[in-house]
Amino acid sequence: MDISELADKVSRCDRRALARAITLVESSRADHRDQAAELLELLRGGGREAIRVGLSGTPGVGKSTFIEGFGGMLTAQDLKVAVLAVDPSSTRSGGSILGDKTRMERLSRDPNAFIRPSPSQTHLGGVARRSREAVALCEAAGFDAVLIETVGVGQSETVVAEMSDLFLLLLAPAGGDELQGVKRGIMEIADLIVVNKADGDLKAAATRTCSDYSGALRLLRKRPQDPKGFPKALMVSALQETGFAKLWDEMRALTDWRREHGHWGARRAGQARYWFEEEVRQGLLAQLRSDEARAALERLGAQVGEGRITPSVAAAQLLEQIGRA
Amino acid sequence: MDISELADKVSRCDRRALARAITLVESSRADHRDQAAELLELLRGGGREAIRVGLSGTPGVGKSTFIEGFGGMLTAQDLKVAVLAVDPSSTRSGGSILGDKTRMERLSRDPNAFIRPSPSQTHLGGVARRSREAVALCEAAGFDAVLIETVGVGQSETVVAEMSDLFLLLLAPAGGDELQGVKRGIMEIADLIVVNKADGDLKAAATRTCSDYSGALRLLRKRPQDPKGFPKALMVSALQETGFAKLWDEMRALTDWRREHGHWGARRAGQARYWFEEEVRQGLLAQLRSDEARAALERLGAQVGEGRITPSVAAAQLLEQIGRA
Repeated sequence: MDISELADKVSRCDRRALARAITLVESSRADHRDQAAELLELLRGGGREAIRVGLSGTPGVGKSTFIEGFGGMLTAQDLKVAVLAVDPSSTRSGGSILGDKTRMERLSRDPNAFIRPSPSQTHLGGVARRSREAVALCEAAGFDAVLIETVGVGQSETVVAEMSDLFLLLLAPAGGDELQGVKRGIMEIADLIVVNKADGDLKAAATRTCSDYSGALRLLRKRPQDPKGFPKALMVSALQETGFAKLWDEMRALTDWRREHGHWGARRAGQARYWFEEEVRQGLLAQLRSDEARAALERLGAQVGEGRITPSVAAAQLLEQIGRA
Repeated sequence: MDISELADKVSRCDRRALARAITLVESSRADHRDQAAELLELLRGGGREAIRVGLSGTPGVGKSTFIEGFGGMLTAQDLKVAVLAVDPSSTRSGGSILGDKTRMERLSRDPNAFIRPSPSQTHLGGVARRSREAVALCEAAGFDAVLIETVGVGQSETVVAEMSDLFLLLLAPAGGDELQGVKRGIMEIADLIVVNKADGDLKAAATRTCSDYSGALRLLRKRPQDPKGFPKALMVSALQETGFAKLWDEMRALTDWRREHGHWGARRAGQARYWFEEEVRQGLLAQLRSDEARAALERLGAQVGEGRITPSVAAAQLLEQIGRA
C-alpha cells in the first residue's frame, strides 16, 4: 500500500480512501500499525479542525433518529458530517456496516455524510485508540463535524469524552415515577443534556424531565471551561426534527466561548497528552497480558479475595514472577 | 523491632503499639515495607470486622464538628471509634497531629477513640496504600467503626470509597441561588448525603438542600447494592448534635441489608482484589518514575501537546527508550 498516496487521497476527502485508512488504523497487525503511524504522521498538522461531538445515550432513546435528523440539518447547510461509533461491547461483524447504514438510511446516502460503524472488538483500550485515530482521519479529510456515538457501556463515555470537543447526553422523557437511570459519573462530562421525544404524548414528560435535569445540573460544581448557563438541558424531537437549530446554536455558542477563552486549544492539547500517556501506560500494562501473568493474576486474585493473602504481598509475588519487581 | 510482639499488642488494642504500627506501614523504607507486610500478614484473618465509613466534605462544611459529635455518640454507646484522614494534598508535617487533635478536642481525649492524621505526602497512590493498611490495623485492633475522612482533592474520594463499606458525603445548606459545587463523580459513590448545619437560621435552607439532593439522587441509576430508598439524603446539626441517631440507624439498616444480601462480603472481596491489581499496576508504572523516563515523558508530552508528533509515535519512542517496547 502506498501510504503517501493514501494520505493524499484522504486529504482530498476521497471517501473510499478514508474508509481504507480507517480500516488500516483499526488493524492490530504490526505492519499495519507501522503504516497507520506513518499515515497519521503525514496527515498531522494539516490545519483542518472539525467540531468533535461525543454523543451518548442508552438503546431506545432515539440515537439513530437523532443523528439522522441532526446530521441531515448540518449537511443541508453544506457542512460535511462524519459519524463514528464507539461500542466496546460490540460483537458485530461485517454486518454492522449494513446495520448502521440501515438505521440511518437518509444520512448514509447523503454525499456530505460519512458513516462508520464501531470496530468489532471487546477491548476498550484498543477501540479507544482506533476510534481516536479514525476521528483524526475524518478531520484531516476536511469534515466539519465528527459525531462520535457510544451506548455508554462501562467506561466508554469517558473514553469518547477524551476525544471530543463537546459531549452530549441524549435522554428519553421519564414517565411519572420512572427512574431515568443516568449513570452518575456521566453528569461529570456532559456539556449538554438533550431530552429527546419532546413530541405528542411525551411532550409534557419531556418538559418535566428537562426541568429536573436543569435543576440537577445547577447542583453540580461549576467547571472552568463553561460559560454562564452551561452545562444545560434542552429538548428536541428527533422524530419531528424540532429543537435541532436551537441545539446547534447552543453548541456553537459554547464552542465559540471556549475558543475565545483558550479552553478549546487547551482541551485538545490536554487530550493529546492524555492519549500519549495512556498509550505509554497501556504499553507497560501489556506485560500483564502474557499467559503466565494472567494465570498469576487469577490465582493470587482469588486468594486475596478470600482473605488468604494481603494485597501487597500478592502484588509483590506477581511482580517478582514476571520479572518486574 | 519485634514484629510478632507488635502484632500481639495491636491485637490487644494497645494504642501506642497501634500508632507505631501505623507509622511502620506509612514508611516507604524498604526494610519497613517488609516489616509492614509481615505485620499485616500476622494480623490478617483475625475475624474482627469494623464498619468502615468513608466521609467526604469540603472545608467549612463542618467535618471536624461532625466527627467529634457523631464519634462521641458512638463511643458513648461503648463502641470503639478510629478516625483516619486521607489528604493527598497535605503538606503538613508533625504539626498535623496537634492540628487534628485540636480540632477534635473531646474525641481525642476519649478512651474509646483513636485519631490519626493523614500521612504527609503528595502522591495519592502512596497515601492510598498506607491508609488502607492503617484501616486494616485499626480493624485488627478491634475498633468497631473506622471513619476515613477526606477533603475530596482530586481522586481521593474514589480511593477512600475503595476502602470503605459505606460512603458519606457531608454538605452545607445552599443559600438561595448559591451553587453547591458537588463534584459530579462523587454522586456515583455516595451512600448517604448528609446535609449539616440544619439549625438556627440555616434550618430552612438545609431542608431545601436536602430535598433538592433527594430529587437529584432519584434521577440516578439504581445500584444493585442498594435497598429501596438508598442512597438517600438526611439532615443533621453537628453543632446541636441532632440527627445523629437517625443517621446511625440508616447506616446500620443499609449495612444489615447488604450483609443479608451478600453485598457486604462481595464488596470487601472486590476491594481486596482491586487493591491487589492496583498494586501490580503501580509496580509496573513505577518504571516511569526513573529520571530518564520522566524527562522523556515531559519532552515528548510537550511535543504531543503542540501537535508536533502523534500520541502513538511518541508513546512508542518512550517505551523503546526505557526498554519496554
